[in-house]
Amino acid sequence: MDQKAINVIKNLTLDMIQNSGCEGNYGICFSSAPILYTLFTKHLNVNPSIPDWINRDRFVLSASHASALLYATMFLSGYPLMIDDIKSFKKFGSKTPAYPSINTMGVDISTGPLGEGFASAVGMALAEKKLEALYNQTGKSKLPKLFNYNVYTLVSDGDLMKGISYEAASFAGSLGLDNLIVLYDSNEVSSDGEVKNTFSESVLSRFSAMGWSTFYVKNGNSSSEISKAIEKAKKTKTPSIIQIKTIIGDGLLNQGKNITHSQLLEKNDIDQFKQKAGVGTVPFTVLKEPASYIRDTVVQRSIKIYSDWEKLYNDYKKVLNPNQVTEINNINQNLVNIDLIRANLPIDYNNKELMRESNHRVLNIIADSVYNFIGGSADLSNITRVRLNNHEDIVYGKYTGKNINYGVRDNFMGACMNGLALSGFRPFGSSLLVYSDDMRESIRATALMNLPVTYIFTHDSVTNSFDGPAHQPVEQLSNLRSIPNLYVFRPADIKEILGTWNVILNNKIPAVISLPRTEVKAEQGTSAGYVNKGAYVAGPEKNKLDAIIIATGSEVQLAKSLQVKLLQEKNIDVRIVSMPCMELYSIQSEDYKESIIPTGSKIFVLEYGSSFGWEKFVPSSDYLLTVDSFGASGSKDDVLSYLDIDSDNIITRIENLL
Amino acid sequence: MDQKAINVIKNLTLDMIQNSGCEGNYGICFSSAPILYTLFTKHLNVNPSIPDWINRDRFVLSASHASALLYATMFLSGYPLMIDDIKSFKKFGSKTPAYPSINTMGVDISTGPLGEGFASAVGMALAEKKLEALYNQTGKSKLPKLFNYNVYTLVSDGDLMKGISYEAASFAGSLGLDNLIVLYDSNEVSSDGEVKNTFSESVLSRFSAMGWSTFYVKNGNSSSEISKAIEKAKKTKTPSIIQIKTIIGDGLLNQGKNITHSQLLEKNDIDQFKQKAGVGTVPFTVLKEPASYIRDTVVQRSIKIYSDWEKLYNDYKKVLNPNQVTEINNINQNLVNIDLIRANLPIDYNNKELMRESNHRVLNIIADSVYNFIGGSADLSNITRVRLNNHEDIVYGKYTGKNINYGVRDNFMGACMNGLALSGFRPFGSSLLVYSDDMRESIRATALMNLPVTYIFTHDSVTNSFDGPAHQPVEQLSNLRSIPNLYVFRPADIKEILGTWNVILNNKIPAVISLPRTEVKAEQGTSAGYVNKGAYVAGPEKNKLDAIIIATGSEVQLAKSLQVKLLQEKNIDVRIVSMPCMELYSIQSEDYKESIIPTGSKIFVLEYGSSFGWEKFVPSSDYLLTVDSFGASGSKDDVLSYLDIDSDNIITRIENLL
Repeated sequence: MDQKAINVIKNLTLDMIQNSGCEGNYGICFSSAPILYTLFTKHLNVNPSIPDWINRDRFVLSASHASALLYATMFLSGYPLMIDDIKSFKKFGSKTPAYPSINTMGVDISTGPLGEGFASAVGMALAEKKLEALYNQTGKSKLPKLFNYNVYTLVSDGDLMKGISYEAASFAGSLGLDNLIVLYDSNEVSSDGEVKNTFSESVLSRFSAMGWSTFYVKNGNSSSEISKAIEKAKKTKTPSIIQIKTIIGDGLLNQGKNITHSQLLEKNDIDQFKQKAGVGTVPFTVLKEPASYIRDTVVQRSIKIYSDWEKLYNDYKKVLNPNQVTEINNINQNLVNIDLIRANLPIDYNNKELMRESNHRVLNIIADSVYNFIGGSADLSNITRVRLNNHEDIVYGKYTGKNINYGVRDNFMGACMNGLALSGFRPFGSSLLVYSDDMRESIRATALMNLPVTYIFTHDSVTNSFDGPAHQPVEQLSNLRSIPNLYVFRPADIKEILGTWNVILNNKIPAVISLPRTEVKAEQGTSAGYVNKGAYVAGPEKNKLDAIIIATGSEVQLAKSLQVKLLQEKNIDVRIVSMPCMELYSIQSEDYKESIIPTGSKIFVLEYGSSFGWEKFVPSSDYLLTVDSFGASGSKDDVLSYLDIDSDNIITRIENLL
Repeated sequence: MDQKAINVIKNLTLDMIQNSGCEGNYGICFSSAPILYTLFTKHLNVNPSIPDWINRDRFVLSASHASALLYATMFLSGYPLMIDDIKSFKKFGSKTPAYPSINTMGVDISTGPLGEGFASAVGMALAEKKLEALYNQTGKSKLPKLFNYNVYTLVSDGDLMKGISYEAASFAGSLGLDNLIVLYDSNEVSSDGEVKNTFSESVLSRFSAMGWSTFYVKNGNSSSEISKAIEKAKKTKTPSIIQIKTIIGDGLLNQGKNITHSQLLEKNDIDQFKQKAGVGTVPFTVLKEPASYIRDTVVQRSIKIYSDWEKLYNDYKKVLNPNQVTEINNINQNLVNIDLIRANLPIDYNNKELMRESNHRVLNIIADSVYNFIGGSADLSNITRVRLNNHEDIVYGKYTGKNINYGVRDNFMGACMNGLALSGFRPFGSSLLVYSDDMRESIRATALMNLPVTYIFTHDSVTNSFDGPAHQPVEQLSNLRSIPNLYVFRPADIKEILGTWNVILNNKIPAVISLPRTEVKAEQGTSAGYVNKGAYVAGPEKNKLDAIIIATGSEVQLAKSLQVKLLQEKNIDVRIVSMPCMELYSIQSEDYKESIIPTGSKIFVLEYGSSFGWEKFVPSSDYLLTVDSFGASGSKDDVLSYLDIDSDNIITRIENLL
């Protein structure tokens, strides 16, 4: 029956791709069909009727180009997909888009760029370990584990070539995430042909060197061999990878060749496959017997597993405290309710403080009250100041803490946070702003999935004294702002930091917090409560509105000192608008906007970063007090003077334009 | 003498960092001092008086935070650095900036983000193999090798944690780059502390699995042990890594601790080191005997090696053809002289062609006439159409070809190209535009070093039918434009492609070429010759200038069809400006700009990408026919309609605003 069922799956993917009318990926759908069939029917602990069951096994299609295979397998397994959904593969508005999306019920994660899925699967595995540490009562009672799910991911040669998958694997090995099982479709053919000329390494030896258990399946068409390997992998005390030797496009005339990656099939190829497989000739024929077999096998196992777990959960409810039960119930919604505006945090208007340190104080308030708040840094927690004081580090075998040491693995950190957020957590991760360049694929995935992940970036401008151009961000702030659905906050002081976190935590948004290397003091006029408006008047004009300076971050303090100077020395009366979040400001009412930045005003923008995105606010580029060239090695003052944006220069420029 | 000399180096780095007055990296300077000392005095084949000698060994400081150590070693080795340069460490305008820069004579590459240097070192090693293949006459004559240099790189734990270093190592192993020697300062401490909790893998086993030779030095303070390992590494037929066990901050009171990464030293620590090392107490004291020893050792070896090579080169000049001699002489200048405007390329105004295919035809013209033109793709050469027809693939042991298969390693591809460009080549690399997100650190390094590297990105907008949002670029074009010193070209048709390559090749600039997935035909009105102006009138208005549409890339064709419709159906007379390169347009004279886009015109911008960067051209955001949200899975028409930028919608929007 295995082979018949596999043929039905393959046949469905063939019809889906052919019907979509555009280049598809028969190759991996045909090589991986036995793998997904085996996983879904024999191992994956899920409930297709309740796709968001909290203790389900997760499946991550890191090899995202096998989307048709995933949909076909899910459809046959009883997930909420109809045959019309299958027929609408890649069509606009369908439940079966070109690449897997969490908008489709039962798909655990949206995937696209290779390697991202692998890295997020590691985040999901870490999340499960955290849930175990938070809620399992195995040490304290006779109850078995409430949380005990595995995370499976299907990866291709391409996934493993990508650096992010190495970062993820090294981290998973170091932390001993034994609930992670990687299914490696080793078909040896990538888009450009055989991989041997550019990817000749011994993958299993490499993973072994990273503390993984490794398994090898010689015949990738044998469901029983694959199943045995998965069985063994589930029992290891380390993460596992199973290298499954397959043939790309197995069963097609061009099997073993890279053109199965991206071509439509000729009629004779379709005919020969359908005949050989005995799956009927009419497109979208689903043979009843094997289809029922798949569905019944998955569903019957699901019913048993799920009802056992429900009983267990009821027993747990008697043992857990009520907060914990609420938490578990809320995990899939990942809601947080906190009032930071009224947090008890002393504001010092007289002394400067590193903004990273201000943020550190806020982080600790949050960490001590929000159970699923968790975070760390890509090896820069001392610099970015994100260590949570009252919480332990997460290390091998010990997952009770809240501090994650990601190592120097920025891109992985982002993808890992996506996996954590998909599993009920509110993760933050920190690095230098310039290193956001290394995390772009992960950040974009955060935005695309609309996940409540917060990226904390420090050293956010050319004012990073003595760092030099390679470590001085210029274009990064505007680049992040240009990512759809990402909220970029650049708070001016500790009050705006509070307001920023208040917006982020209560609104469940993909967010960036950008902080300088420098010190500032709390400013009169700034406000935590107005951060949710995106911009507000932080320093009103005295008598007449000669001009407006829009400033962000630490430049707000500079703007306010310029305001005094301009009035006293030049009799120029300016209003200071702090704009901690351009995205939030853009969605305010026209009335509100007019009250802050009246039409026709002479408007300057002061931000030590790229002009891109600011041009819409100013009459002409002359009004942009921004930076569009690389910085330099030297002191802050030397660099600002070199870039013509020191205080004196700014005052002269404003005076000349008014 | 070894120890005395090492102490002098350490002492100099200490004084440099302390004198800079800002957080420094004593840690790695003190752990790696014996490594750099050994490399420079006993192995590195260079000529400090002629730092750009073409057959010199290359040294890449991937662990860029050891910059003080590099400068101190170079200074003592006789490179053109004065003691005042050493005293000016990190100061504005000095030859010793915070991170190594190629602007300092003798520094082979600017480095910053960890892992980048490693990856570029692989590019340099590949370049040497190419030079061997191009010019060595060992098979054809009795002459020994003209090119036979090695590439050394110093890496830290952090470098090896980064995904890009894995990508680079896997590639180097697959291609058998035996001229690459990685010196791994294995001090086990990164910025956040001991690495064992997050980086517990066996590094050498991992490299062994990738086809590398591995060596282990137990005592990192022993120059003779280090030297023996380097000696062995030079003889291998694979790339080599030497794991050298060291102690971070070796010799300081806080040795072995992460705080040596980033603190200034207390006086008692300085005193105890200087006393123990016997290096005098006055800052910047350079003990004569050990200093002379270093200099004499390096220089005497250099003189011999260099004069031998000069003799050999003279012998080669008799054997090589004159073109080859010119090429070798020009390699450090990396100049190209080609007239593509007059290239013999048939222009078809009647039939559509994939722009990737048009570019492919131009690439082949270039490859057949420019000797150092070389390129490939991150596993998408079939899709991006960059395979050079008349040239072989570069594979293990065979480096005569021009096609590079980078595997699915986008970020590495960028850094590798930087290494190739620094070694006399004109590399191009191709991928999908959305994957530029994975290459940002490498692209920024290209721009920062001003290297003649060309990134070819295809599938450059939401018009990628059926790809879905994860593969549809939105913000990428504007993000690339915002990188300082990067030229982003979005040609409209094959003529503009020709013009683009003509500008790139003859001007030696960091460049991006952005191409659509779709087909276009050559347009009347477009021009190869005007690409160097950045923008020009590609479709003049008929009688009166009602409005201007600035368009780029494949949208120029759309704009020209809209021009006809607007005139015929709405009596609106518009001018079409094609703007293949915003950066080049921005540096034209005001007169030229006024002739193309007269002040006060009603200006629209039509580009299927982010509005960021375009706002300065238009009266208000309403005039932007751009895309600021994620795309969708579906046909091109469905997606454009969903985003309100299909033809009908655009016409309505233009009509309403005029």
